[in-house]
Amino acid sequence: MKLFITAALLSCALSLSAQQALFNSSNIVSPQINDDASVTFRYFNPSAESVKVVGDFLAADPAVVIPTDIHMSKNDNGLWEGSTATPLAPELYSYAFYVDGVRTIDPANVYTARDIATLSSIFLIDDGCDGLYGVHDVPHGSLSKVWYHSDILDVDRRLSVYTPAGYESSGRNYPVLYLLHGMGGDENAWSELGRACQILDNLIARGLARPMIVVMPNGNVDMPAAPGESHLGLSVPNTNLPHTMDGTYEKVFPEIVNFVEANYRTRRDKASRAIAGLSMGGFHALHISKDYPDMMGYVGLFSSAIFPLKEENIPLYADMEDKIARQFENPPLLYWIAIGKDDFLYDINTHYRSLLDAKGYDYVYTESAEGHIWRNWRRYLASFAQLLFK
Amino acid sequence: MKLFITAALLSCALSLSAQQALFNSSNIVSPQINDDASVTFRYFNPSAESVKVVGDFLAADPAVVIPTDIHMSKNDNGLWEGSTATPLAPELYSYAFYVDGVRTIDPANVYTARDIATLSSIFLIDDGCDGLYGVHDVPHGSLSKVWYHSDILDVDRRLSVYTPAGYESSGRNYPVLYLLHGMGGDENAWSELGRACQILDNLIARGLARPMIVVMPNGNVDMPAAPGESHLGLSVPNTNLPHTMDGTYEKVFPEIVNFVEANYRTRRDKASRAIAGLSMGGFHALHISKDYPDMMGYVGLFSSAIFPLKEENIPLYADMEDKIARQFENPPLLYWIAIGKDDFLYDINTHYRSLLDAKGYDYVYTESAEGHIWRNWRRYLASFAQLLFK
Repeated sequence: MKLFITAALLSCALSLSAQQALFNSSNIVSPQINDDASVTFRYFNPSAESVKVVGDFLAADPAVVIPTDIHMSKNDNGLWEGSTATPLAPELYSYAFYVDGVRTIDPANVYTARDIATLSSIFLIDDGCDGLYGVHDVPHGSLSKVWYHSDILDVDRRLSVYTPAGYESSGRNYPVLYLLHGMGGDENAWSELGRACQILDNLIARGLARPMIVVMPNGNVDMPAAPGESHLGLSVPNTNLPHTMDGTYEKVFPEIVNFVEANYRTRRDKASRAIAGLSMGGFHALHISKDYPDMMGYVGLFSSAIFPLKEENIPLYADMEDKIARQFENPPLLYWIAIGKDDFLYDINTHYRSLLDAKGYDYVYTESAEGHIWRNWRRYLASFAQLLFK
Repeated sequence: MKLFITAALLSCALSLSAQQALFNSSNIVSPQINDDASVTFRYFNPSAESVKVVGDFLAADPAVVIPTDIHMSKNDNGLWEGSTATPLAPELYSYAFYVDGVRTIDPANVYTARDIATLSSIFLIDDGCDGLYGVHDVPHGSLSKVWYHSDILDVDRRLSVYTPAGYESSGRNYPVLYLLHGMGGDENAWSELGRACQILDNLIARGLARPMIVVMPNGNVDMPAAPGESHLGLSVPNTNLPHTMDGTYEKVFPEIVNFVEANYRTRRDKASRAIAGLSMGGFHALHISKDYPDMMGYVGLFSSAIFPLKEENIPLYADMEDKIARQFENPPLLYWIAIGKDDFLYDINTHYRSLLDAKGYDYVYTESAEGHIWRNWRRYLASFAQLLFK
């Protein structure tokens, strides 16, 4: 067996041809997170006439607003470069380049996130929310993409399930948080953009949250699975989905609970079930917790889209005040409402709270800076998860 | 509760601002798979001077070679368009645009795949390999990302586990295929680029493969998890990993088997274990099956990097012929070798087969068209999986 090709040669050959010649041949580092937590972006394009960075880089401290558009300048070799004017707070950020006005992701950055129907480049300044967003040397839970059958819709549907570290071997039963996405989102949103697994791993490891299962379903009744994961193949994501806010989802939701409780080691009482959602998911959490008043012991409404539409004769909204009254006869252990000061849904949340106040229903209210934005929802999850099942 | 904002208004507001204003504002459809299975690409960029598409569009029929570079032409509105000259065979394809020589993914296509350190746009012509790559109306297995502890390396490591439809409720024990990636790959490669879940779902549903668990570990001993999933955060993927082909992985591999057999309902005999890998993973499969001759009943070497380096005094290669002789004393039920005619590893595979032939060891050989390319590995998996555990 005298074969004189070495691993070094393999490595060389691979870099030319293999795994489909997809090694990144450029040496451009972008984004570069500098020692002071400012960020430098680079982009090679000799022929472009203007390149700017557009991202969600507003500082966590509202007094320090960093311009969202960073104009890059080109050196003699055609390499564009631009940096944030100040350090960025630890967070997960999204951005894109605009090259002569045309949006493109950063070709030097392999990390992207799809939010609804748009792909953006992302980076993480370790470590947001007091170290909750990074992958640290702590026990890690598992994330599973599983399918359940909806008898009502007569279709298989996909959901994401986080099981905490030790689940496989502990033999214990766990409480469950049902965590819902917003309009246009899907069952991947909370685990990707929401850093839900990292937040839970880190909170549980520090003893700040109880070990729990987190179920992240798809809240679009006409979408069995996230774009790219269903029979629709890799088609353009459909952002105009019917039946997302007409009561259909609330009707089929108990099938998800039944599936989870039949297939996972769960605690099956109201005090061991929580539901929370962002935007449209907050709408769903509100109505599900109201329609099944004995199901959810904890309710979280994150930047919630609160639209009672009883004037349109949708059964979901019929007798809404009576149903909420019934819900609060045997009230949830926690009814938690959070919204950012700049959220376009701020007023409607204020109005909804005034209705709860008028009836004397007990809830906890948290108001944050900024608006309808993922970093608020990550923080809300981190706060809410610490309050559950205690 | 008189709130007159409607869901339509929410939808409108969301399209402007929410989920971070990341609805795709353009109406450009790209790629467009035409009725005749030709593909049209579109890209809006008024200022660009040349745009071409570079992809892996070689036809499945080697007589019909489609140019890999498609030069696009610009209309008066700045919209570039170009199409493949002929229909494409059903497959999963990767491509990028070169805009005045600068590589970029297709901004209108949210589907991408990272292969090692490069991101490409992808599309699927339904349905490759006789309908094995699409998500069809068949029972679906689950895909889990789980962590196990390596005592030898003293670190938590991540792996992907496919469990077949019905696993949760059947109570049965299942055979296990260990499926290994190539150099620079990771535990996500087979489930993303390899369509492993779809291939297994479809084969099992048609009765062409036995229900099995598929374990897809990370084969880089210095990389606990895929880029973006470890403590390294969203840093530039490291493509120069030490200890990938020096015998270390073969030493720690039994820890993976032990973890899987302790945490999943598995059949735990040689006839119920298979190992296969592509390129570097084929190297690993060869050495693991040789070093633990009682472990693996089925061995698949896909475009395998076969580099016996005994001249470098690496213990892995010591007594290699003797070890293979021992392996074939109680031979695997199947020793399956596949490679493409154009693969840069073709000669070394031919040489290895001649060594097996000289000893009279039994194996099955499959030769395909093309080279070191993912569509070969998907097809090899589809073929190999049908031969297992029968």
